[in-house]
Amino acid sequence: MPDARKNDLSRVEALIFDVFGTVVNWRDSIIVEVSKAAAEHGMPEGDWGRFADEWRAWYGKSTRELSSGEGHWRLVDEIHREKLDVLLAEYGLADVMSEEAKVDINRAWHRLDGWPDSPSGLRRLKSKFIIATASNGNLALLVNMAKHADLPWDAVMSPDVYGAYKPSPKVYQNASKLLGLNTDQVMMVAAHTGDLEASARQGLATAFVYRPLERGADNLVEMPDTSAFDISATDFNDLADQLGCD
Amino acid sequence: MPDARKNDLSRVEALIFDVFGTVVNWRDSIIVEVSKAAAEHGMPEGDWGRFADEWRAWYGKSTRELSSGEGHWRLVDEIHREKLDVLLAEYGLADVMSEEAKVDINRAWHRLDGWPDSPSGLRRLKSKFIIATASNGNLALLVNMAKHADLPWDAVMSPDVYGAYKPSPKVYQNASKLLGLNTDQVMMVAAHTGDLEASARQGLATAFVYRPLERGADNLVEMPDTSAFDISATDFNDLADQLGCD
Repeated sequence: MPDARKNDLSRVEALIFDVFGTVVNWRDSIIVEVSKAAAEHGMPEGDWGRFADEWRAWYGKSTRELSSGEGHWRLVDEIHREKLDVLLAEYGLADVMSEEAKVDINRAWHRLDGWPDSPSGLRRLKSKFIIATASNGNLALLVNMAKHADLPWDAVMSPDVYGAYKPSPKVYQNASKLLGLNTDQVMMVAAHTGDLEASARQGLATAFVYRPLERGADNLVEMPDTSAFDISATDFNDLADQLGCD
Repeated sequence: MPDARKNDLSRVEALIFDVFGTVVNWRDSIIVEVSKAAAEHGMPEGDWGRFADEWRAWYGKSTRELSSGEGHWRLVDEIHREKLDVLLAEYGLADVMSEEAKVDINRAWHRLDGWPDSPSGLRRLKSKFIIATASNGNLALLVNMAKHADLPWDAVMSPDVYGAYKPSPKVYQNASKLLGLNTDQVMMVAAHTGDLEASARQGLATAFVYRPLERGADNLVEMPDTSAFDISATDFNDLADQLGCD
């Protein structure tokens, strides 16, 4: 694992969080919303797990391109809509859904549910640290999601604030700068090793949180090698315990 | 009052707030911190009200210049420090205070106390609306202040996010855009008529909140003509009542 090394955690004043997968259970939330909308439009059956995975994959591909400066700049709301239109056509829903219904289902990403430990664990972490987002979601999406899922962020930071997408080094640098901190006073929290490796290269401390269900109960995420990270936690309450929060 | 007109308040989904003076009592907080630091450095007596007012006036002049694109871009932490060094020299404190003590007193602006109704009123408003800052303070200052003064923002937005200072039209436009809303879905809340007039010109709804003590108990702010604003409130709980919050 490149350049990751153990940090002096007594210096950490802020935790910044990956959101999709780390804080919220995007896959189950999307499956519930899409299956409900499809049923309301006369299509009770469908492989909505595949729908969710393909929708998410387009997001992954698009944000990876944008993080390298490829593709025209756009927000995740727009990236989601691009693929939604393709998927609705594939699934035979494009012509039966109104524009209003399409706008609403695209907003399902603003209404993702947290993992069960997210609200309580974040509150414990907030009692000792600044807690903020470092997500590729846009600000409006993250603000609406926080209200929906009871996520008590001190600050919501996003590509429309940073001017960059993860894993661009600019995101980790700008997050630290906006919070008035050096990079070693900030800890990145994520369920994805690539995000942590990229933040460690900018000098941030790192906490891995294991979210085995992110890809569904039939497709458990394997526990990766986390030896290069400062902390490995089973959920946000375990992270709060390890960081000495009440 | 230019261009202000009554808005359809049923469209409002977010309230954005001026902070210094509207949400927090900057003058008394600064007087307390400066007088304490001065006494610790052998100077128990001083006109700390004047100190606070002059410090604040430099902020006002500098941010007004920056809002018109004059002067080199800098954050309020830096603007505060410029004037602090001048004032400490004038008051005979420059040579007796360590750099660490100067950094700490400059951070007094991160520790301003809210008006008594701010935490409870904001919580009521948050139950129905997105509540966010639209302050000229920098993001780190606003985040630290929110933790100190128990201000439950959904989003902290600042010049280092907007790329502009109030009353530049860009601030009101970018605040709305970042929240994914049209300007008429956003209400500006401020104790200062100029801020409300500038936001009304961009199509925002407006709420005036009267803070007679902002300039001190010996220098009460007169109630201005608020007839052009959508709402005039005596504090945040009155605003919550008028907006139908529980």
